[in-house]
Amino acid sequence: MALIVQKYGGSSVATPERIVSVAEQVVRRKRQGNKVVIVVSAMGKTTDSLISLARQVHPDPPTREMDRLLSTGELVSVALLCMAIERLGEQAEGLSGRLAGIRTDSTHTKARIRRIDPRRIRTELEKDAIVVVAGFQGVGPENVVTTLGRGGSDLTAIAIAAALKADVCEIYTDVDGVYTADPRRVPAARLLSEISYDELLEMASSGAKVMQSRSVECAKKYGVPFLVKSSFQQGAGTMVREIKVREGAVVSAVSIDENQAKITIFHVPDRPGIAAAVFGELGDARINVDMIVQNVSREKHTDISFTVSSADRQRALEIARRVAKEIKAGEVGEDADIAKISIIGIGMMNQPGVAGRMFRSLAEQGVNIQMISTSEIRISCLVPKEDGERALRAVHAEFIEHPRTAV
Amino acid sequence: MALIVQKYGGSSVATPERIVSVAEQVVRRKRQGNKVVIVVSAMGKTTDSLISLARQVHPDPPTREMDRLLSTGELVSVALLCMAIERLGEQAEGLSGRLAGIRTDSTHTKARIRRIDPRRIRTELEKDAIVVVAGFQGVGPENVVTTLGRGGSDLTAIAIAAALKADVCEIYTDVDGVYTADPRRVPAARLLSEISYDELLEMASSGAKVMQSRSVECAKKYGVPFLVKSSFQQGAGTMVREIKVREGAVVSAVSIDENQAKITIFHVPDRPGIAAAVFGELGDARINVDMIVQNVSREKHTDISFTVSSADRQRALEIARRVAKEIKAGEVGEDADIAKISIIGIGMMNQPGVAGRMFRSLAEQGVNIQMISTSEIRISCLVPKEDGERALRAVHAEFIEHPRTAV
Repeated sequence: MALIVQKYGGSSVATPERIVSVAEQVVRRKRQGNKVVIVVSAMGKTTDSLISLARQVHPDPPTREMDRLLSTGELVSVALLCMAIERLGEQAEGLSGRLAGIRTDSTHTKARIRRIDPRRIRTELEKDAIVVVAGFQGVGPENVVTTLGRGGSDLTAIAIAAALKADVCEIYTDVDGVYTADPRRVPAARLLSEISYDELLEMASSGAKVMQSRSVECAKKYGVPFLVKSSFQQGAGTMVREIKVREGAVVSAVSIDENQAKITIFHVPDRPGIAAAVFGELGDARINVDMIVQNVSREKHTDISFTVSSADRQRALEIARRVAKEIKAGEVGEDADIAKISIIGIGMMNQPGVAGRMFRSLAEQGVNIQMISTSEIRISCLVPKEDGERALRAVHAEFIEHPRTAV
Repeated sequence: MALIVQKYGGSSVATPERIVSVAEQVVRRKRQGNKVVIVVSAMGKTTDSLISLARQVHPDPPTREMDRLLSTGELVSVALLCMAIERLGEQAEGLSGRLAGIRTDSTHTKARIRRIDPRRIRTELEKDAIVVVAGFQGVGPENVVTTLGRGGSDLTAIAIAAALKADVCEIYTDVDGVYTADPRRVPAARLLSEISYDELLEMASSGAKVMQSRSVECAKKYGVPFLVKSSFQQGAGTMVREIKVREGAVVSAVSIDENQAKITIFHVPDRPGIAAAVFGELGDARINVDMIVQNVSREKHTDISFTVSSADRQRALEIARRVAKEIKAGEVGEDADIAKISIIGIGMMNQPGVAGRMFRSLAEQGVNIQMISTSEIRISCLVPKEDGERALRAVHAEFIEHPRTAV
């Protein structure tokens, strides 16, 4: 008998018909002799509708009330799924985040899970019930409802799987797994049968929208392998787990991120502490800086370029202009027409020359590289936005479609 | 400083705009120096939509899950009203039925309130917050959410007013108070400034749909006077309270009930225990019998007629036919084309001849009376449905428009 945790996202429970089909799937797993815990999101666009209602009564809704409001969406899915399961003759017990023992900090609308007290879930499982838990929510220190922010239901499922030491954790969603590249941009992209936590994390921070980083981080921290698969189609999905070494492919996936902006401070005095002044202030403003390039110094002056996400562009520009004035630097320039192309793979750690292959394949397409950054398992190149998709397909062809293990 | 409990029904909070206007009204009362507790229903048709969703996943949804589902509707209103109040600069604390201390029995979808533990409400009031409570819901003995059935939010408000010993209880709804008759049927109907609990109870059981009986019974039991008024229009509304004696009008209101069916068992053996056999079985089936007429016996046989609500008609007919066979009675007949006209007023207790005036005013209209029943403060006549509205207007004219205190 295995203990299975499954998560169904908003699109998987968007209509009564889909809820019935989820119930059928869940009951089938139960009757195969498993203990089953289900985590559900709010139906379809419920959360968006609730946010819109809130904005109509308050231009900037208080986050504490917002959490009370949003948390009702999952409770509706929980009750409906329980009904659908009971109709099929199995016992179901629905639990809010509170009753499921999800304890969080007090950061309303994006709370972090502090701990999970799985006693109630265990009690219900022992009574032979299918336990249905409201995703995306918990209770804070003062026993007030909190929500976990975007992707919160994935986090609920993984954290529960960790707390219960579940045998299997399955994340059902509207895509059928993790691909070597976004199939809408790269027709030759193919489904990966498995990927490591670290690779998926690098993908998430490189523009691939498969899962929120903190859910993957949580899975990695507690060693919870999980399967990402479609709730609409048959298919094996992609297993995400710890992988230290992999034979074969050097690169697992390629990605493109077009939501970046490049900011350059020209004519910066080249003396110690200048970089600290610039990036310290950006850090204080909680702006994530992704790539940094400082040109070789000539005549005691240099140019510093860095990239930030488009959402932070305006604030980052203001800070850069202020700092430039303080340190007596020159103009501040910006460029939003850029794309970041990344190749990701744990195989590249032990394979010299991967970067060279990437640069060469871009050069063969006549794509100019503006900036480069690397981690142990990722190499990213900033290119002009108009060349982005071509660059993406070129590196996909180079590393995924025609892989070579040696240079 | 007064302690005020207000209840706003579904139509009063049906849109964000209405919620904002409720918030303005609530904040105004608070700033006049009062402590304020607000009970809210689900927005508009939310409850009906949730019921429809449930029916799509289960033909006969389990009541325990139904309560979990339905209770989310009021939580949405609570969160939105709290936001709207906070936007106006006052502090608001939203409480589910559970947190507000509403303890019920375990009869899901129509639970009865067992007791109210108002400590949390008191604590929040002492912190100077406007307390917003989810109507229609509580928690049962096993700490599981229950709902109180139709009109449940009125009951929540009255029970909280009783528990808090509130100075004022105001029920805001989509009508502007209690009328002498349904204004859509009797154009001359007028708003009553006050009415007694008993009269309102008789009205509710005589076809007037102002409030559910159990809310009025609760108010009467705990001596909670309450004001029924419109949340859309200015106006004094109707005060419902204990009234022992009233000067002036003999009759306070008239009503018509067209949801009745008359069943007659012909040729019933006239011996002891026969009525007990018929009505005992109906009682066992939880069918409420309203009027009963047994004709004068001739030749050891009699005819027994009684009325039931249309909803119970089919079941009552089946029972009557079975019992008729058992007791060797004759045919069973039915008539659904009937209307019950009632006059209600605490004044009639000490005024002889009121019944005579009613019968005479019906006779003047050529309306034939089929059955009669009376209580201390009500006289009802069963008439053909086609004569119903004419009969209603005739008795309204007789007792309300041209009142006389003596016969």
